[in-house]
Order: sequence, then C-alpha cells, then structure tokens
Amino acid sequence: MCELLGMSANVPTDICFSFTGLMQRGGRTGPHRDGWGIAFYEGRGCRTFHDPNPSAESEIARLVQRYPIRSLIVVCHIRRANRGRVCLENTHPFSRELWGRHWVFAHNGQLRGVKQLPLGAYRPIGGTDSEHAFCWLLNRIRARFPEPPRRPDALWRHIHALAQELNPRGVFNFLLSDARHLYAHCGTQLSWLTRRAPFGEARLMDADMTVDFQRETTPTDVVTVVATQPLTDNEAWTVMDPGALAIFGAGERIAALNP
Amino acid sequence: MCELLGMSANVPTDICFSFTGLMQRGGRTGPHRDGWGIAFYEGRGCRTFHDPNPSAESEIARLVQRYPIRSLIVVCHIRRANRGRVCLENTHPFSRELWGRHWVFAHNGQLRGVKQLPLGAYRPIGGTDSEHAFCWLLNRIRARFPEPPRRPDALWRHIHALAQELNPRGVFNFLLSDARHLYAHCGTQLSWLTRRAPFGEARLMDADMTVDFQRETTPTDVVTVVATQPLTDNEAWTVMDPGALAIFGAGERIAALNP
Repeated sequence: MCELLGMSANVPTDICFSFTGLMQRGGRTGPHRDGWGIAFYEGRGCRTFHDPNPSAESEIARLVQRYPIRSLIVVCHIRRANRGRVCLENTHPFSRELWGRHWVFAHNGQLRGVKQLPLGAYRPIGGTDSEHAFCWLLNRIRARFPEPPRRPDALWRHIHALAQELNPRGVFNFLLSDARHLYAHCGTQLSWLTRRAPFGEARLMDADMTVDFQRETTPTDVVTVVATQPLTDNEAWTVMDPGALAIFGAGERIAALNP
Repeated sequence: MCELLGMSANVPTDICFSFTGLMQRGGRTGPHRDGWGIAFYEGRGCRTFHDPNPSAESEIARLVQRYPIRSLIVVCHIRRANRGRVCLENTHPFSRELWGRHWVFAHNGQLRGVKQLPLGAYRPIGGTDSEHAFCWLLNRIRARFPEPPRRPDALWRHIHALAQELNPRGVFNFLLSDARHLYAHCGTQLSWLTRRAPFGEARLMDADMTVDFQRETTPTDVVTVVATQPLTDNEAWTVMDPGALAIFGAGERIAALNP
C-alpha cells in the first residue's frame, strides 16, 4: 500500500507542513520506502519531483520540505511497491497532457487484471497497474470528450463512472487533477480536511511539529488537504465513503458523487 | 535566444560540470534570465526539473549542481524569452509520451507562423512557439508511425524531414530524445564534443572550474556533450552544419543526416 496526499487552495499555498508529516512515513514512521513523488501546479504549468529513494532519506525531499513552492493544487504519493519494481518510471504521480492541460494521477491500491484492459493513444511507460489504470482513464475521457465539455459536471460524472468501473477490481483510492480541479476517489480509505478562518494550531502525528496557521495565513484563505490517513491528531478530518468521488476547487469541496 | 545542453553517455554519468558552466549564463555570464529546465533519463523513466527563476539564482539549480544525478541522456535549456511570457508552462524542456516512451524537447530560436500549423492529439499547454513545434513534430511522427518502426533509421529520416520542413520558418536549433537516442538539430548554431580515453582536463569558460576527467571516469566511458556554444575552451568541439541532424546513442554520434 501507499499513501496519498493532495491539496486544493484558493491562494498559492505551500504544503511544507503536511509534506513533512507524510515524508516521515517513507521509511521512518511508515514502511513506504519505495520512492515518492509530488506534482505542484503553477498556473497551467506543473512542476514534478520524483525519487525512487525513500522519502525520509531523500535529498530532493529535503529540498521540497525546505523550499516553499506555492501552488493551488498538489498531488503527492509515497510508495510501498507491491506491483512493478522500484524505479523512476514506476514512481507516482504519473502525468499526461489532454486538451492542452497537464493531468496528474496518483494511486493507492491494487487492481486485478487492469493490464488486460484495452488502451488507445495513452500508453504506460513503466510497469505498474496504476499507470495502466491512468492511461485507461485518459483514453476513455478523450474518447467521450474529444474537446473539454462545456459543463464541468459532465466530466465529473464521467470520471466517477470510470472509477466505479475499475473499483470492483481491487483497491482504487486515487488523486487526479486536470489543472482545474482535484478529484479524490475513495476506494477504501481517504480523508480530507478544510482549513479556513478562524485558523488554529495543527499538530503532526508523525513528527514533533506544530503549526499555528493563524500566523501563516490571511482570513480569506481556504485550503483543503486530502490524505490516505489523517496527518494531524487535533483536527476534525472527514472520512470519505467507499465509492465516493469528491471534487475540490479553490480550496473547497465543490461536489461529491456517491455510488 | 536560449542555450541548449545535451548529453549522451554509455554509462550513467552526471552532468554537474557542464551544468555548472551553463547555469552561469542564466543571469551571471549570460543574459538567459527567464528560467531553465533539465530532463534526466533513468531507464524508461525521466526526471525533470523546471524553474522560471534565473538559473544563476535558483535553489533548484543549486540542488542539481550539488547532487549528482547519473543518466544516459540529458536535455537541458536556459531561456531568454522572446515569445511567450516567463512562467512555468513556458519553461523547456517540454515532454510528452509516445509509444509508451518519454519524449523531451528543448528549442533555441524562433519560428514564424508555427502556431498556424494544424495539430492532432498533442496540444501545447503553454504559449511558446517551441512547444507548438514539439506537438506538431509528435503528431506527425505518430501519424507516420502509429507503432515504433522496426528500423530506427526510418524514424531518424522522418525527424530530419520534419525539421527541414520547419527550418525555413526561422531558427530551429533543438534537442530531442525518445529515451533511446538524443537527436540534435542544428538550425544555425550547435556544437558537440565526445570525451573518451585517454581523458584529460577540461576548463569551463564561464566559471573558474577545471575537471580532470581521468579521475572521474573509467577507460571504457564514452560521453558526448552537445551545446549551443562550446562550454570549455581547451577541447576540440565540432561545430555542426546548418540543417544537419546528429543522432547520438550510448555516448557516440551514431548517425548524421545532412540537408
């Protein structure tokens, strides 16, 4: 199994605090030693860092912890390999371009027989079932919508239907973004939390670290964090229902589709 | 104008020395202040770093200089914007997937009217004529070869023909890789150098730095460096002819196509 971390915000926000907590699980407080990766959207652009080394020992992870990259959408993953060997091309998040937008995807779980599903223009570079599932998703999205649909909820319903099609094959917790929204699908386990004024203190479970968000934010900031397991032990996380897809935009959960 | 730097090697090799020289041109010894990016292939995977900040002042550039990432193929670019604003999505190298392989592209020059050319599945994310040209190249490669051709030289000739088609529109110096080979097209200015035993000392033009490659290599290492302008002043660089495409594999120039 792996751990996912996502963020949606209404102002460019750094994820140093949550990232510091998650990285401890990459070989220190957790067994996810098989690499990690993170994607930061900045405008239409997307900056990704990937490392097949354990995050708790990664030089690049230290840079990301130290150097605040401010972003509206972040997708992060730390890996404990169960399918596909430990190497750079098998390190999430995966990314592809569709409609002139960066799409990124990170998955926690396993899916039986997903590599037998037919693909199209998008093909996996590495050997994971996760990347195969991502390519299958994008091929199906492009087949249904050669151009972006006018109504975004038509896209959301299609993504949810595709997630429901793969879900019975195993465990399909994923984070997906199309540079506009963050999509979080709960197969078995995913939680989220929205921070807004009045901001308080948050205490990491995995590292001896507390942040007073009141000192770090303005009263209009809204930031949602999504994670496999809650990262703080003094805030009220919402546990998602299996089969649900949540859509986050500008820091808020703007829609939820249930199975 | 911008500067390009590419590497092809027969053993995983770090590019710290050449990168250090090039980065000085990003705001210190050269005017290329509008961002930089680098792609390192590792197996089928590809690690990229992009930064719209000047390379000479970039925290991420310092990491890349300090932390030796060993690779068989590298494509690097520092930018002086002339078309497209300074932002992450306009920062080279650009990347896309074709045939389940990472393709990366970096361009030096300007191309008139390239945005009027028809595209297909690959579309630009940012606003540069360079990314548009890359998408056009990949759409044309995929249209001609839906599957990778058996004979690699059929692909090489097609890439050369496409480069010749765009070349009259302006300046089209580029580095391209499909994870197998490094393609270097000289529109107006590109030089390369192969280092092999017996290795000697190399002295950077742009920084007070000398490396004795004999101490850093084994006798069987072969490494080619391609750059807009020579990076060292005591080695014999080969200046490419305008219109030529050179193909590098495992450190050697394995083919050259002339106009």
